[in-house]
Amino acid sequence: MSHCDVGYHRRMARWQPDARGRLEAAAFELFRERGFEQTTVADIAARAGLDKRTFYRLFGDKREALFSGSGHLEEVLVRAVTETDAGPFEAVVAAFRRVAEEIFADRLELVRARQTIIESSPELQERELRKTGSLVAAVTAALRARGLDETTATLATESGATVFRVAYARWVAPDSDAPLSDLIADVAAKLRAITSAPTP
Amino acid sequence: MSHCDVGYHRRMARWQPDARGRLEAAAFELFRERGFEQTTVADIAARAGLDKRTFYRLFGDKREALFSGSGHLEEVLVRAVTETDAGPFEAVVAAFRRVAEEIFADRLELVRARQTIIESSPELQERELRKTGSLVAAVTAALRARGLDETTATLATESGATVFRVAYARWVAPDSDAPLSDLIADVAAKLRAITSAPTP
Repeated sequence: MSHCDVGYHRRMARWQPDARGRLEAAAFELFRERGFEQTTVADIAARAGLDKRTFYRLFGDKREALFSGSGHLEEVLVRAVTETDAGPFEAVVAAFRRVAEEIFADRLELVRARQTIIESSPELQERELRKTGSLVAAVTAALRARGLDETTATLATESGATVFRVAYARWVAPDSDAPLSDLIADVAAKLRAITSAPTP
Repeated sequence: MSHCDVGYHRRMARWQPDARGRLEAAAFELFRERGFEQTTVADIAARAGLDKRTFYRLFGDKREALFSGSGHLEEVLVRAVTETDAGPFEAVVAAFRRVAEEIFADRLELVRARQTIIESSPELQERELRKTGSLVAAVTAALRARGLDETTATLATESGATVFRVAYARWVAPDSDAPLSDLIADVAAKLRAITSAPTP
């Protein structure tokens, strides 16, 4: 199909009105099939039955099509740390457990496939790190809004994010079967043990 | 001066035989003067009295000229965690304090200028995050070589790196005057306090 086939556009538009979602799905499929490097924005737009201009209206670059979920993730985390009275580290760990249950639990195969794509490209790894950075900033700001000082808020968020990353890496590993939420609780307990040793 | 001025090259070569060092210094100067985006590899090479080919023989891209110190940083950290019998988190915190004393202590103004350049560019921020990731991987591997399991090694390194980042941000802040090494010790104590609260 050509992107000049307006009839096709109209039909696609009726079936899947969400251009963003169509482009994301097309990008994900193509990155899996051909690899990230071998896929162009024109390929993604064509697969979605749209044009490059529409892609660039919605995404800053090719990488961005793989990271649209990060906004929702951030919302859930921020709400969770805002709505609790738990101590800062507990609050962040609990927020990541909520994300594990609400967002990740039923999507292990998709998450594994996405992880494989990200690991194939240093550019995607860089973008992922930047997304994590902005998510950490949002959670830190939410803790600050609860009246915590900057250092405490940052340490709690960064430590919670570390716990999440370690648990997540175990969860996506090929031989894993424990639920992500349980892995987060285990890893958080381990971090407590490591940092509780008395200062010499 | 033109990069075709062979006499100039010869004189420069006599004064500063290290092409890598000259290119790094030129890049740093130009990024400060004109900004990262406004500086080209050709500008950097010309300022160093070298050509673009030499630049690309030594650096993968323009960003890389700002990150050559990370290899030395990694060596000092890896040696420090390897040579101690302290617990994993203590070992990593002590390693960062050694880096603070050996590498950063007398360079606050340079570090501040470099930080300003990095904050001006998302691309540079991404590269910095990737460099931090590779440094964390090296320290984690050094702890693994001491017989620690993967989770413990990763948690100790990531938590130590978090402590370093928070202390470093305070150190480079305009109104700071405490030594970096002391700030690291303070922030490490705070992390212990936050994570030592009992699990509900």
